Amino acid sequence: MPAFSLAQLAKITGAELHGDGDCMVQGVGSLDDAKTGEVTFLSSSKFRRHLESPLASAVILKPADLARCPVDALVSDNPYLAYARAASALYAEEEQPVGVHTSAVVEDSAKISARARIEAQCYIGEDVQIADDVVIGPGCVILNRCRIGQGTRLVANVTLGSDTQLGERCLVQPGAVIGADGFGMANDQGRWVKVPQLGCVVIGNDVEVGASTTVDRGALKDTVIEDGVKLDNQIQVAHNVHIGAHTAIAAGVGIAGSTKIGAYCTLAGHAGVAGHVELVDHTHVSGLTAITKSIREPGVYTSTVPAVPHEQWRRNFTRLKQLDDMARRLQALEKAMQEQQSDQS
Amino acid sequence: MPAFSLAQLAKITGAELHGDGDCMVQGVGSLDDAKTGEVTFLSSSKFRRHLESPLASAVILKPADLARCPVDALVSDNPYLAYARAASALYAEEEQPVGVHTSAVVEDSAKISARARIEAQCYIGEDVQIADDVVIGPGCVILNRCRIGQGTRLVANVTLGSDTQLGERCLVQPGAVIGADGFGMANDQGRWVKVPQLGCVVIGNDVEVGASTTVDRGALKDTVIEDGVKLDNQIQVAHNVHIGAHTAIAAGVGIAGSTKIGAYCTLAGHAGVAGHVELVDHTHVSGLTAITKSIREPGVYTSTVPAVPHEQWRRNFTRLKQLDDMARRLQALEKAMQEQQSDQS
Amino acid sequence: MPAFSLAQLAKITGAELHGDGDCMVQGVGSLDDAKTGEVTFLSSSKFRRHLESPLASAVILKPADLARCPVDALVSDNPYLAYARAASALYAEEEQPVGVHTSAVVEDSAKISARARIEAQCYIGEDVQIADDVVIGPGCVILNRCRIGQGTRLVANVTLGSDTQLGERCLVQPGAVIGADGFGMANDQGRWVKVPQLGCVVIGNDVEVGASTTVDRGALKDTVIEDGVKLDNQIQVAHNVHIGAHTAIAAGVGIAGSTKIGAYCTLAGHAGVAGHVELVDHTHVSGLTAITKSIREPGVYTSTVPAVPHEQWRRNFTRLKQLDDMARRLQALEKAMQEQQSDQS
Repeated sequence: MPAFSLAQLAKITGAELHGDGDCMVQGVGSLDDAKTGEVTFLSSSKFRRHLESPLASAVILKPADLARCPVDALVSDNPYLAYARAASALYAEEEQPVGVHTSAVVEDSAKISARARIEAQCYIGEDVQIADDVVIGPGCVILNRCRIGQGTRLVANVTLGSDTQLGERCLVQPGAVIGADGFGMANDQGRWVKVPQLGCVVIGNDVEVGASTTVDRGALKDTVIEDGVKLDNQIQVAHNVHIGAHTAIAAGVGIAGSTKIGAYCTLAGHAGVAGHVELVDHTHVSGLTAITKSIREPGVYTSTVPAVPHEQWRRNFTRLKQLDDMARRLQALEKAMQEQQSDQS
Repeated sequence: MPAFSLAQLAKITGAELHGDGDCMVQGVGSLDDAKTGEVTFLSSSKFRRHLESPLASAVILKPADLARCPVDALVSDNPYLAYARAASALYAEEEQPVGVHTSAVVEDSAKISARARIEAQCYIGEDVQIADDVVIGPGCVILNRCRIGQGTRLVANVTLGSDTQLGERCLVQPGAVIGADGFGMANDQGRWVKVPQLGCVVIGNDVEVGASTTVDRGALKDTVIEDGVKLDNQIQVAHNVHIGAHTAIAAGVGIAGSTKIGAYCTLAGHAGVAGHVELVDHTHVSGLTAITKSIREPGVYTSTVPAVPHEQWRRNFTRLKQLDDMARRLQALEKAMQEQQSDQS
Repeated sequence: MPAFSLAQLAKITGAELHGDGDCMVQGVGSLDDAKTGEVTFLSSSKFRRHLESPLASAVILKPADLARCPVDALVSDNPYLAYARAASALYAEEEQPVGVHTSAVVEDSAKISARARIEAQCYIGEDVQIADDVVIGPGCVILNRCRIGQGTRLVANVTLGSDTQLGERCLVQPGAVIGADGFGMANDQGRWVKVPQLGCVVIGNDVEVGASTTVDRGALKDTVIEDGVKLDNQIQVAHNVHIGAHTAIAAGVGIAGSTKIGAYCTLAGHAGVAGHVELVDHTHVSGLTAITKSIREPGVYTSTVPAVPHEQWRRNFTRLKQLDDMARRLQALEKAMQEQQSDQS
């Protein structure tokens, strides 16, 4: 593991150094248990009390918290970002040997960079193109004609359906399936007839795809995920969905077919988005929320129904079925009251 | 890729030809960008405006839209179905060589048709039976005693638990797990004791199973999926569920144990169905809807809670906890008003 | 398959024998179709009518149902638990040969017990430690430095990220991914920067992990699952979650980052728990319920919204957006009524 001086880390993180620039750091830790030789961070003043007696060699923190810091500090307006950069430097992956593991099966027509690494038990299909510095982890299956850009890594047991395109510096977690058939069925008097799924999946640069997330190929045109999109685990992206750049989606979200999610959006866990709708850039969707129509105005949208003790739920939620009736009765009462009052005047 | 004349496609699709039967077509495209030599379709008159200047050689459309079609036409009452058939013909999979890839591991007792294809990195367990024209894609694991019917295809990285039966012409997408243990636990003073899951999974003909969908084996009897059922991605089918023929289920749906879904049902995305309930044939469940009781009448059932801007949500959804109180107060007011009015008369 | 006398089964299950202790049983069946030589169980007196003419050799049942049982009986206060023990004995897995399959790839530095079994197409990474009686099923990928305790079984196609620790006697179903990166991202003026995920996953003894369930590694500290926890399929456990001992979680549940679930809790299907909250021991969460805040009191918590016929839904659920308005109008009416009544007195 590499070690850095605080002066070096200040440069790497863009933070301002307060203290001994020669102090060496070789790891990170959390605010409450980082040790000497480690750097930690304080992203919110809420946790300021942990600053009292840190054992860490240095703390990355906001200008407002500097005065209370008893050890060396790296001052940044965005300590979490500075921490991410410090940790990335301190825990950089060791360079691995390149080449194709003897147990991997690679079709003759595949073009694999001599600088790529294909690990054990993989299958690489016909006419696949794999660029420099790509790592294909154990057990991955890459079907025919996929193209994988420079520096992209598939961790393990990832499946890419035929014709999938992955950009540069992407990271795909285990169990992800990119490029399976979309769910397109025509109905023939009650029976379902499969509609061939002829589009593919096109993914930009710097995209992360979480464990067991599924991104289906398009029906006719492609399913598109733009640069910098981050997908957590167990997300479902249906055929012909388009996800704009730098959008982040948390685990368990489902996006139905042909929906267009804008750029710089966030969707929290287990949200669901209907098919054929559009979410404007900078839309933020709360957890367990159902988006059933297009959203034209940026902002936060919510339909989370928070839990209550079961007995309270029983009393209140059965009333939901009476809500329209209640609204009409309320209106009738208001009318009666008004008439009474005008009678009296 | 094969090419067909419009006369041939009319026959394949059951549509009525209007125009040049000798016109050759070798692909399909969407209404707004199909090119010469391609056929497209107009399933809804809503999109009729795109008919003005199609570049496609022919359009599959409804009788009502024929008059406005400036190019050759295939007329059908169900253009999407006719399109599915045309596309299936035009993009028929090339026949692949049969046989077992050298990297596949096949137990001696497995019986594999000489007309089947077992691809790279597969494992085929003891006493497995694989029929003619089956394709087992790369990385699949088929545990002991599974039986796979003629023409079925497992795309890649599919897992079949022991004793799983798949019918003919099924299609299983990557990452699907069929025949894992059901979630059966007995409670021993707070600790959970596993109940052996001794049933298996029995799947009919023409069933599609989506990516990362899980279908658990039965506890004592089997989990059953009837002919023609179509399951999208990331669906959970618990032990002893029974799904009737020609039911289609969208991504992210969960069906709890021992529930019986009828035939010709549809369940939209992220719906959840409780355990031990029955849904009559022709039940349709909306997206993100909770089915907590049996449904005896065919129809559409819904409990989707649509999103609103967050501030509006904050104001309204906190009132849910007061709903029973509101209902009682409304009733009290009605009574008071009534008494007042009877006093006055 | 082994056979047991009823006397032996009485001992194994802790039940009281009523009838012929020498009667031999070699299997189990359900109450309505168990045959001679099989034992069945009646866990709830609700199904007592099936006792009339069982073909089973014996029935495991509660003391209250004994009088009506026409065949031999094993009497237990918890017949389902006794059944689980009987079935576990009767269907004990045959001992399998130990050793490493020739198709498996095992790094030289891995330490694998001579009493472990590594099946076909596996990959075992550097410095992995695998204890006695472990079974690693076909297609599993175990990345570097994982440790797997005695008697644990990975069924097939399981992925363990680096440094994952699994205790003793655990069972991991196919497609599960334990130890993928958590979803940690810092924001740099709209763009997401990955935060290295440096913790790991630590799982206790006797834990079951369902098919396609994902358990992410911690960001700094570890994600922890204590002894006896049972996870169904397609559950998402985010980074730094802590799940207390003997908690059972049904399929499709999502638990966001840093949340602490107590011991002896149950979470029903498709529930979602927000990040950074705590659920006290003995919390029970209903299906499709959103937990958005910490729960301090044991009990059942619910926000399930049950489905209604679509037309009824249309009428009632649009009123949700008027709920605050309705509440205010109700209050105004109450005030007006009160003023009227005080005027009149």
